[in-house]
Amino acid sequence: MERIKLAEDLSFSRLVYGLWRLANWKQSSGQTLDLLKYVYEQGVTTFDHADIYGSYTCEELFGVALAKEPSLRQKIEIVTKCGIVLPSPQRPNHKTHHYHTSKSHIIASVDQSLKNLQTDYIDVLLIHRPDPLMNPEEVAEAFETLKKDGKVRYFGVSNFKSDQLTMLQSYVSEKLVINQVELSPLVLENIEDGTMNACLENRLVPMIWSPLAGGKLFSDMSEKGVRVREALTEVQKEIGAGSIDEVAYAWILRHPAKTMPIIGTQKKERIQAAINALQYELTLDQWFAILHSSLGHEVP
Amino acid sequence: MERIKLAEDLSFSRLVYGLWRLANWKQSSGQTLDLLKYVYEQGVTTFDHADIYGSYTCEELFGVALAKEPSLRQKIEIVTKCGIVLPSPQRPNHKTHHYHTSKSHIIASVDQSLKNLQTDYIDVLLIHRPDPLMNPEEVAEAFETLKKDGKVRYFGVSNFKSDQLTMLQSYVSEKLVINQVELSPLVLENIEDGTMNACLENRLVPMIWSPLAGGKLFSDMSEKGVRVREALTEVQKEIGAGSIDEVAYAWILRHPAKTMPIIGTQKKERIQAAINALQYELTLDQWFAILHSSLGHEVP
Amino acid sequence: MERIKLAEDLSFSRLVYGLWRLANWKQSSGQTLDLLKYVYEQGVTTFDHADIYGSYTCEELFGVALAKEPSLRQKIEIVTKCGIVLPSPQRPNHKTHHYHTSKSHIIASVDQSLKNLQTDYIDVLLIHRPDPLMNPEEVAEAFETLKKDGKVRYFGVSNFKSDQLTMLQSYVSEKLVINQVELSPLVLENIEDGTMNACLENRLVPMIWSPLAGGKLFSDMSEKGVRVREALTEVQKEIGAGSIDEVAYAWILRHPAKTMPIIGTQKKERIQAAINALQYELTLDQWFAILHSSLGHEVP
Repeated sequence: MERIKLAEDLSFSRLVYGLWRLANWKQSSGQTLDLLKYVYEQGVTTFDHADIYGSYTCEELFGVALAKEPSLRQKIEIVTKCGIVLPSPQRPNHKTHHYHTSKSHIIASVDQSLKNLQTDYIDVLLIHRPDPLMNPEEVAEAFETLKKDGKVRYFGVSNFKSDQLTMLQSYVSEKLVINQVELSPLVLENIEDGTMNACLENRLVPMIWSPLAGGKLFSDMSEKGVRVREALTEVQKEIGAGSIDEVAYAWILRHPAKTMPIIGTQKKERIQAAINALQYELTLDQWFAILHSSLGHEVP
Repeated sequence: MERIKLAEDLSFSRLVYGLWRLANWKQSSGQTLDLLKYVYEQGVTTFDHADIYGSYTCEELFGVALAKEPSLRQKIEIVTKCGIVLPSPQRPNHKTHHYHTSKSHIIASVDQSLKNLQTDYIDVLLIHRPDPLMNPEEVAEAFETLKKDGKVRYFGVSNFKSDQLTMLQSYVSEKLVINQVELSPLVLENIEDGTMNACLENRLVPMIWSPLAGGKLFSDMSEKGVRVREALTEVQKEIGAGSIDEVAYAWILRHPAKTMPIIGTQKKERIQAAINALQYELTLDQWFAILHSSLGHEVP
Repeated sequence: MERIKLAEDLSFSRLVYGLWRLANWKQSSGQTLDLLKYVYEQGVTTFDHADIYGSYTCEELFGVALAKEPSLRQKIEIVTKCGIVLPSPQRPNHKTHHYHTSKSHIIASVDQSLKNLQTDYIDVLLIHRPDPLMNPEEVAEAFETLKKDGKVRYFGVSNFKSDQLTMLQSYVSEKLVINQVELSPLVLENIEDGTMNACLENRLVPMIWSPLAGGKLFSDMSEKGVRVREALTEVQKEIGAGSIDEVAYAWILRHPAKTMPIIGTQKKERIQAAINALQYELTLDQWFAILHSSLGHEVP
């Protein structure tokens, strides 16, 4: 599988496996390990976490599975995130859903993630959401400390807009390598508001969450949803794809910023759809037909 | 006529002549040549094209006229654009209205423009619209190749917003010299969304399309249209201008970014109105009265 | 009181005293001097003016009071603004409310402010509003002249958005030190549109006008107003503050950009509320609870 170079000594697989819903799948650690190995055998070596996924439980479920086959760690890249504080049965002292990006919180969050994931290092740590109270000097200090201590190799952000990206980067000495953002044929916000351009300008790669709009690509019965599904189906026929999600992945992969879609399913059929998409390069006619179906009109 | 310096060896006349509607005018090539010479004699030496104008026919009509008097070429500056793909009887293989900014497309488009315009070089080539699929590295390579080959002297963009401008510029080694944007007393978008400021920040000059809002300045019967016309008429009386379009041009010319309005008419009377406007410098009272008429309220 | 360093030889008190309403208070110059001295004794050394406050009368009222105790001048910092032209009985030749940021206007405005304020120098001069006709080269020249002549020590802006800030800064050789913007629990615009981030990115400090939303914090009966007041009251109880305005000031002071709220009241009780706020550091739970009350929903 194609690999995307993020730094001199770091590359990700073009497709990333997301563990967002791992807790929902109610698997044994053996089943989880089998799934990870299956994904890995397809060429997907990059795994996306956040401290809060599964209400603070997914990292640990992954760590327990990984501990069954420790040699896997060196062959994969682990991304995790910090900065959201969530009320949760696992965190009874959390009162309000809020952000926390102080130096001490970032470092404590990473320490907990390392413990949960049963690993010595995170490949890339992301600030999960732009925090209106983010003190960029503190974040920069936290990043330096974590790098120096070997706990995190590289740093990035998630859901950051252009102003937040350039502001934080101006305080952080090392180049941020990732901005994880939402993009799908149904959700164009980050194309329309300049975030994708900001990624290109700042030379950081967008990881794409909800490439299938969290399943709405299949189920959204709004006018827009129906229109987009029709356009995807049309292109599916033209290219001989097996399903519309293949087309959606191919649509995202066509973007010049080297988008890395996150696969969020444990179903092998759906994982395979993402992998199949790598073989297609949509024509511009096809790409814009899908764009137009989402916009509801042609580009000017 | 005042000239605007865009580079060490390139300047444009303050007013630019636009060939957007050339095909609509149904002129013989002799009539077109006469018109070009008339415009030139007024001091307007810069001519604005795009590959797609007149559904891909305007460049050629201009080229045929120019070929009747080849000595004119060295005395004028030619701008053209690329990057839009339009379904058209002239391009039966075009299916969907879309953008195309690959290296090979840009170069092929310029080659066709050179042939149509019957010239060896374009003075400034613009990317016509911000393409969500624009690969800035490819655009930069295309620009370098075209410059090296002597086919295009300088480069710019059209309808680019701030994020698109700075992103592309960060990949293109040579300074972009133009951003062609819409501006008129009726259409303030590029003032309000920061695009005019981005032009000033990036030191590139805005060429202004639809300075009369495509004629709506005279005909728009909405509340806003009526209000703007009243404000223009008021100022017309104060300065003794011949018509409200003179005031509209003077309003645009007052902007500090050295705006270069594009004249899009073949009627000598209307061409003269644009030229007359150069003599007026609106007072701030006048300029803001027109702004307020368009906003529907005073500035804060 | 905490001081905020703006330049090697310039610092402001964390709280700033605003003279916006000085004319409304109908005080004798003796009463005004007493008020200034009272404020100064609380540690507030920075005083915020604009040429137009009180319809061009506030600077002079302040100057007359200051002249009664000239030794005070060296102990305080004076901010004033220019760039708005207001119809006013004091300026019968002003016709339209507009902006004026030409070199000659800026210099003339400062000369008048120096005369009104009965001082030899302004500590920081701000451009009051982003002027769509601002010629940044002229503004830069005006700043250089004023600095060279010792009339103004440092420069800044007011109500500038990100694009306006970076554009002007790119022309002005000296670093701008202030952006005076509106912020309160009721008015989040400058957080939401990236202006606060732009301040952090450009390393300039936001002075905050209307920290109590011009009194609406107490009186706004809209759903949002009621919600925010409830959230402020809740936090007031938690921290044992005397009133909700203390909480509002503390909420603003919590921002990492070293926000400097402007106190706009002559009532000692309300001045004291602002000073009291300096002792509180809201928890993140408290800060976000107030944010959520204003947004009407939690952060994502």
